[in-house]
Amino acid sequence: MPPVSDHLGFADLDLDRTARRGYPEAVYCAGKTPAQVAGIAAAVRERPDVVTLFTRAEPGHAAAILAELPDARHDTDAGLLAWPATPPPATGGLVVVVAAGTSDLRAAREAELTARYLGRPTELVVDVGVAGLHRILARVDLLRRARAVVVAAGMDGALPSVVAGLIAAPVVGLPTSVGYGAAFGGLAPLLTMLNACAPGVAVVNIDNGYGAGHLAAQIAADPAA
Amino acid sequence: MPPVSDHLGFADLDLDRTARRGYPEAVYCAGKTPAQVAGIAAAVRERPDVVTLFTRAEPGHAAAILAELPDARHDTDAGLLAWPATPPPATGGLVVVVAAGTSDLRAAREAELTARYLGRPTELVVDVGVAGLHRILARVDLLRRARAVVVAAGMDGALPSVVAGLIAAPVVGLPTSVGYGAAFGGLAPLLTMLNACAPGVAVVNIDNGYGAGHLAAQIAADPAA
Amino acid sequence: MPPVSDHLGFADLDLDRTARRGYPEAVYCAGKTPAQVAGIAAAVRERPDVVTLFTRAEPGHAAAILAELPDARHDTDAGLLAWPATPPPATGGLVVVVAAGTSDLRAAREAELTARYLGRPTELVVDVGVAGLHRILARVDLLRRARAVVVAAGMDGALPSVVAGLIAAPVVGLPTSVGYGAAFGGLAPLLTMLNACAPGVAVVNIDNGYGAGHLAAQIAADPAA
Amino acid sequence: MPPVSDHLGFADLDLDRTARRGYPEAVYCAGKTPAQVAGIAAAVRERPDVVTLFTRAEPGHAAAILAELPDARHDTDAGLLAWPATPPPATGGLVVVVAAGTSDLRAAREAELTARYLGRPTELVVDVGVAGLHRILARVDLLRRARAVVVAAGMDGALPSVVAGLIAAPVVGLPTSVGYGAAFGGLAPLLTMLNACAPGVAVVNIDNGYGAGHLAAQIAADPAA
Amino acid sequence: MPPVSDHLGFADLDLDRTARRGYPEAVYCAGKTPAQVAGIAAAVRERPDVVTLFTRAEPGHAAAILAELPDARHDTDAGLLAWPATPPPATGGLVVVVAAGTSDLRAAREAELTARYLGRPTELVVDVGVAGLHRILARVDLLRRARAVVVAAGMDGALPSVVAGLIAAPVVGLPTSVGYGAAFGGLAPLLTMLNACAPGVAVVNIDNGYGAGHLAAQIAADPAA
Amino acid sequence: MPPVSDHLGFADLDLDRTARRGYPEAVYCAGKTPAQVAGIAAAVRERPDVVTLFTRAEPGHAAAILAELPDARHDTDAGLLAWPATPPPATGGLVVVVAAGTSDLRAAREAELTARYLGRPTELVVDVGVAGLHRILARVDLLRRARAVVVAAGMDGALPSVVAGLIAAPVVGLPTSVGYGAAFGGLAPLLTMLNACAPGVAVVNIDNGYGAGHLAAQIAADPAA
Amino acid sequence: MPPVSDHLGFADLDLDRTARRGYPEAVYCAGKTPAQVAGIAAAVRERPDVVTLFTRAEPGHAAAILAELPDARHDTDAGLLAWPATPPPATGGLVVVVAAGTSDLRAAREAELTARYLGRPTELVVDVGVAGLHRILARVDLLRRARAVVVAAGMDGALPSVVAGLIAAPVVGLPTSVGYGAAFGGLAPLLTMLNACAPGVAVVNIDNGYGAGHLAAQIAADPAA
Amino acid sequence: MPPVSDHLGFADLDLDRTARRGYPEAVYCAGKTPAQVAGIAAAVRERPDVVTLFTRAEPGHAAAILAELPDARHDTDAGLLAWPATPPPATGGLVVVVAAGTSDLRAAREAELTARYLGRPTELVVDVGVAGLHRILARVDLLRRARAVVVAAGMDGALPSVVAGLIAAPVVGLPTSVGYGAAFGGLAPLLTMLNACAPGVAVVNIDNGYGAGHLAAQIAADPAA
Repeated sequence: MPPVSDHLGFADLDLDRTARRGYPEAVYCAGKTPAQVAGIAAAVRERPDVVTLFTRAEPGHAAAILAELPDARHDTDAGLLAWPATPPPATGGLVVVVAAGTSDLRAAREAELTARYLGRPTELVVDVGVAGLHRILARVDLLRRARAVVVAAGMDGALPSVVAGLIAAPVVGLPTSVGYGAAFGGLAPLLTMLNACAPGVAVVNIDNGYGAGHLAAQIAADPAA
Repeated sequence: MPPVSDHLGFADLDLDRTARRGYPEAVYCAGKTPAQVAGIAAAVRERPDVVTLFTRAEPGHAAAILAELPDARHDTDAGLLAWPATPPPATGGLVVVVAAGTSDLRAAREAELTARYLGRPTELVVDVGVAGLHRILARVDLLRRARAVVVAAGMDGALPSVVAGLIAAPVVGLPTSVGYGAAFGGLAPLLTMLNACAPGVAVVNIDNGYGAGHLAAQIAADPAA
Repeated sequence: MPPVSDHLGFADLDLDRTARRGYPEAVYCAGKTPAQVAGIAAAVRERPDVVTLFTRAEPGHAAAILAELPDARHDTDAGLLAWPATPPPATGGLVVVVAAGTSDLRAAREAELTARYLGRPTELVVDVGVAGLHRILARVDLLRRARAVVVAAGMDGALPSVVAGLIAAPVVGLPTSVGYGAAFGGLAPLLTMLNACAPGVAVVNIDNGYGAGHLAAQIAADPAA
Repeated sequence: MPPVSDHLGFADLDLDRTARRGYPEAVYCAGKTPAQVAGIAAAVRERPDVVTLFTRAEPGHAAAILAELPDARHDTDAGLLAWPATPPPATGGLVVVVAAGTSDLRAAREAELTARYLGRPTELVVDVGVAGLHRILARVDLLRRARAVVVAAGMDGALPSVVAGLIAAPVVGLPTSVGYGAAFGGLAPLLTMLNACAPGVAVVNIDNGYGAGHLAAQIAADPAA
Repeated sequence: MPPVSDHLGFADLDLDRTARRGYPEAVYCAGKTPAQVAGIAAAVRERPDVVTLFTRAEPGHAAAILAELPDARHDTDAGLLAWPATPPPATGGLVVVVAAGTSDLRAAREAELTARYLGRPTELVVDVGVAGLHRILARVDLLRRARAVVVAAGMDGALPSVVAGLIAAPVVGLPTSVGYGAAFGGLAPLLTMLNACAPGVAVVNIDNGYGAGHLAAQIAADPAA
Repeated sequence: MPPVSDHLGFADLDLDRTARRGYPEAVYCAGKTPAQVAGIAAAVRERPDVVTLFTRAEPGHAAAILAELPDARHDTDAGLLAWPATPPPATGGLVVVVAAGTSDLRAAREAELTARYLGRPTELVVDVGVAGLHRILARVDLLRRARAVVVAAGMDGALPSVVAGLIAAPVVGLPTSVGYGAAFGGLAPLLTMLNACAPGVAVVNIDNGYGAGHLAAQIAADPAA
Repeated sequence: MPPVSDHLGFADLDLDRTARRGYPEAVYCAGKTPAQVAGIAAAVRERPDVVTLFTRAEPGHAAAILAELPDARHDTDAGLLAWPATPPPATGGLVVVVAAGTSDLRAAREAELTARYLGRPTELVVDVGVAGLHRILARVDLLRRARAVVVAAGMDGALPSVVAGLIAAPVVGLPTSVGYGAAFGGLAPLLTMLNACAPGVAVVNIDNGYGAGHLAAQIAADPAA
Repeated sequence: MPPVSDHLGFADLDLDRTARRGYPEAVYCAGKTPAQVAGIAAAVRERPDVVTLFTRAEPGHAAAILAELPDARHDTDAGLLAWPATPPPATGGLVVVVAAGTSDLRAAREAELTARYLGRPTELVVDVGVAGLHRILARVDLLRRARAVVVAAGMDGALPSVVAGLIAAPVVGLPTSVGYGAAFGGLAPLLTMLNACAPGVAVVNIDNGYGAGHLAAQIAADPAA
């Protein structure tokens, strides 16, 4: 099938990215009009062999996508749509996604779905912040079974340091914009994670659940893949 | 004894602060010349009834002070001098000072000495960062005996959140400038502590061991005092 | 009664925190959906022995909570709900909460209510900014009766320095986001308080009335408690 | 006398500024080589009718200037040289310069000398920070006699707000880089002064004693001047 | 008449400020509820001898004030209300207010009205930014007649430097939040003005037209006043 | 024709700027009321010899302008109106405008239209971000035909560095506010472009498509022009 | 062998970390005195079964370590010492470390040595910045053979985005403090990497070669390990 | 001659850049050891057909370069070395470099030399800051003869806005780190220039004289070149 190139006028889809990098294309909806997103959705409809993720989709984006791809999966919490709706068979190591608090769920859910649609088995753990250490300590067995752990945390962002000190696998620190005042929109947990005193913490952008899940899926991929 | 006022030309000592606030005067040496500090040391020599602390003393300051007050105590690690050298009898509750890492010792030591010269019993705990949780968990009994705990930490500054989740007493978070890059001279642990997800963390300025120890001494004072 | 754990799917309530730390659980509503908050409210209904505070509750949160806990107390100014509605008997030392200006009342009120529901006697003082020193000087007697003083101030945030210079008890500096321009959402008073030239100022996050009240309640608790 | 223009190759002296603006020229030494400063000093030697100030002069600059203008006045504390050495007769209203602490003296002294060489009567007050309000309250009479008051303060920078609340004349807030950590090189007191809750505070750059003194001299000039 | 004190519960009006400082009280409406502002308006109604300004009044505030003080003057551009509506007779030197661009008019108008209600004669000059120097050069005569000049400018904030280089009177630099991107809400012109290469620029907070006008009125007051 | 000056009260149009600088006047609509913009539109109607651009026009501004100049061109994507509608004949070198992603189109379109109305031939290239290098490499021939290239990019802002390494002509880096979290409203790509490791990148303000297009038009002008 | 705990007074070595996490202990020398570092070196001498890395060692630290462990390996470029000197046999996937410019070599070398001493095969690639794309494109085959790629880059930090777009393996972005001005000590490349438009970039702290190498070693470990 | 590639181990010289981009290679010395720089100097000695610039050379770098290339030109003010020493014949339009103050000379000189060695005729103008507008107005004729103007300015950075308003050619704004306090190492003039209210200002990194000169040389190149 020939590469699709420039045929939309406003976007040059990279559907061959799967072949080149081994991972599907994602469409970042924020900043695009619903009409632009609909155009992309129509274009990918001809390529069911490629998983396409639509991230940061507002309701208007989602409606436009679903008009073109009615059977796409729409996770409203995460603002994510996936097409085809069924994720690929799970291969590689386990990806565990941890949300420090309930308010971090949106980002954590985006990470988990991304890893799942990129082909990894996943599990989600919620509300295990460092203010009550017994919560995370009770999950150490699960955490040690993972080949990559995503930890979403806002405010003090201290949880990735603690988790990285407990396990051998890499931790993807996912700072969230949860909080107020001196959280400065997620700057505080971002800096915390960059300065994690335990080595083994990989940091992604604030609220970037997609990036965290993508990175975890790459880390947990089977080497032969 | 009459209030001492304006007699130095460049400094108006507040030796009656002990009477007014219940705590002794401290002289911040940074930004003063050795000659100015020596002038202050000479003035307090006439008031052995008042404990005087000299903080952030460089070697030049220390030499100038010791020339006037040869029997002052000089802690070179903390850059602190105290006169008279013997601290007052300990009253009030226990102040525990925790240094997350060896590099946080300077600030922690300044805090401990300050609390001790303000009249509290103190204990010091070192190298119990969150990268190895077993270290701090092994000290929970001691921490729970304290009426105030100072936690000095740089880099991710995560330890105060963890300690505050374990005990009922207030925690004084003392961010340090230990670290590099995105630690931004202590900004990272400062923000972490301000966003501590466990309530009960009081934050002071970066590297302000004196302020942390002073605050802990106030908190742990007997109510009747 | 057994620990309640993970039974909500999205939140792991820590109702035994009272036993462990001596203070009740608080639910931070911002970032949670009304449905999530309602689920938590339903869960705590079975534990009237534990005071539960709901902080930063928007009207939608409040309606959801009141549907489950109709007799909860709702302070609309502070965005706070408490259940059971009657605070515990007051013990420990007096907590005085000071609002520099009328615009700082929201944060000050949240601090006062928190300290009251954590069991301390409280008093509130309003509109005593440093632009008219006679106002705060007229309250020195009350301030000196407190075992902890919370000072909420925005803009220049200068009041905690002045109060700390007048009394022996610790001051909890509560910077507020009142102001505009170079107040930078509360950054200016936050920095002011961190650099207070009078020792004895403990700083909490911008607009964090809950944290300030909690800290003051801990400081003013009877040592035996 | 003809305007002096471009004759140095690297600097275009504006000796006619006195005629145009009513105030003398100042030479900012930082960033210039001693040789460049010497060249300027040689040029102004022919114009004893114009007061010239050399600011931020390091010892190397000072030596170069004094080689050309041996009878210039050199204030080493303030890093300032003035030529001719005798200030003009004092006219206009009184300028009072206040240093919150001893460490703020360098900036305060630069401000006072500048105002004096621009022709105002001046007085200097030292060590009257807000941690001991009685100090500044004891000087209210002097402050109320001034037509402009410069207040130099580092750390929390709270003093200008307090002074502005006490007097009718304008206050020039002069933030200094005294302090450490979250003082961020003077950013903290700069923001404090910009957010002064009392109106009537004019702010200049951090450590800019020259600018503060210049501004105060302009404010206190006789209207007819 | 006795001092009015604390009688509103939420605000302690300082109506004697005119006696103490020589300038009237201002009420900062932002962050206050309309009901609170109405309460203040009702209180000042009994003191027509004192000019009261209400700043940063949203429509809701304005309606509440006008219900209590129907004959107050309301300038909707500046968000300012004044009562009594007639300004006092003009005394002292001329205050010229300059708006670099049309978008700076709101802040400039607030400054002009404040100076006028504090008793100074005023003039307003608009749209004289440095991108077309001939505009400001055409006004030099007017500028040189002023005893104080307020210059409101956003974006590059370069105009105060230029004006200060042209006149002998002090310039009050009033940075505005006009602009986008790297203007950072007015931070850019604020820094520009703090670093003005011409001495004689006094800086106030971003968009603080009230403060700029107040300061200019103080500077331009007759010394005897 | 005489210069138009000050006749609007709130704006001093500089219609002679074309004569002085060789480029038309632009009216920045943000911060102006629709009535003010309409007044300006009415004034320029008498000068069809001068191209006038209205930038950052919200719908209310656009309606007001079109009421005065019904045949103006209105590009809703770019928020730009031009009058007269027909651009001048194209002269000078080619200006190529590159949008890294679809979300950067608004800024890119503003740049292209500005360059076109200032008289340059233009071409637009979309969706050629560095995540798929083959896209930009496929356009090298077009890029090498340009005398100036504008590159609009948000997020990492890496594209200008790459383009500048491929061509001899100057690159105008146009950072956009596309992105979230640590993009900090365009700060991230702004810093990236300022630190471009390839020389030849000229940076303008975030989202300043007008400025980028104006600069490119100046660079690509025929020297004789 | 029993856990070593608290026997140094100032440091609590975690030599059992290898057992718990699978990776050796590292000693961060900055902020420790040479005597403290020597004490640690003496302690680890009894455990040749554990690899110990000393990072950020100044010459004084290095001399103290070599006095205790004369056969340790000392890489002066990277400021790193390793003991025992022989790295363990290489297992797991290949780690490729890329330095965008020669000035990034220090950080890149620290990353490579860390990965090597943690047991991975490594290769180093130098001077392949995006200003000359042909350089990095010539190495694509090598990059595609890696299971993890570390990319050290200062200034614009654009290289990780480009590399991540070319390969399937995760990229560890290592921002360096190379550069000046608006590089702000590495903030610019840090933000660039956090906003990488290609997914698959894991970011660590500025100049944190140790952390980057550790993370890469974890990613490239054999799943069974 | 074949491309020189990777033969130094630590640097991959891009001597064919002249062919590809039309401009010579520059070697950024900061962060490289003298030995590394010497290796590069030895390599370019075989290519006298290519101009090589060494920027930001400390004395140690310069000595190492001169040992290999004894006849290189060394400008100690600008920290620049050029080899061969004779610049190419001047072609294209005039580049005028303006230094606002004497302290901005280092950056301005680096810009002028770069433009000269890239083949443009250049002129240098010094000490024409906006505090005395008559200075820059006296040079308008020269400025209008330029095809590109570089304006180096620190502190308020206001000069590029003023110059851009006077001429038709593009202005390259070169912010310098001259100043102190709220100049924040050049951040203030950088922001000023990015927000220039006159269009036509292209901004480069703080103190980046090389980049400014390179950009100006590209702009002023003959289109046919």
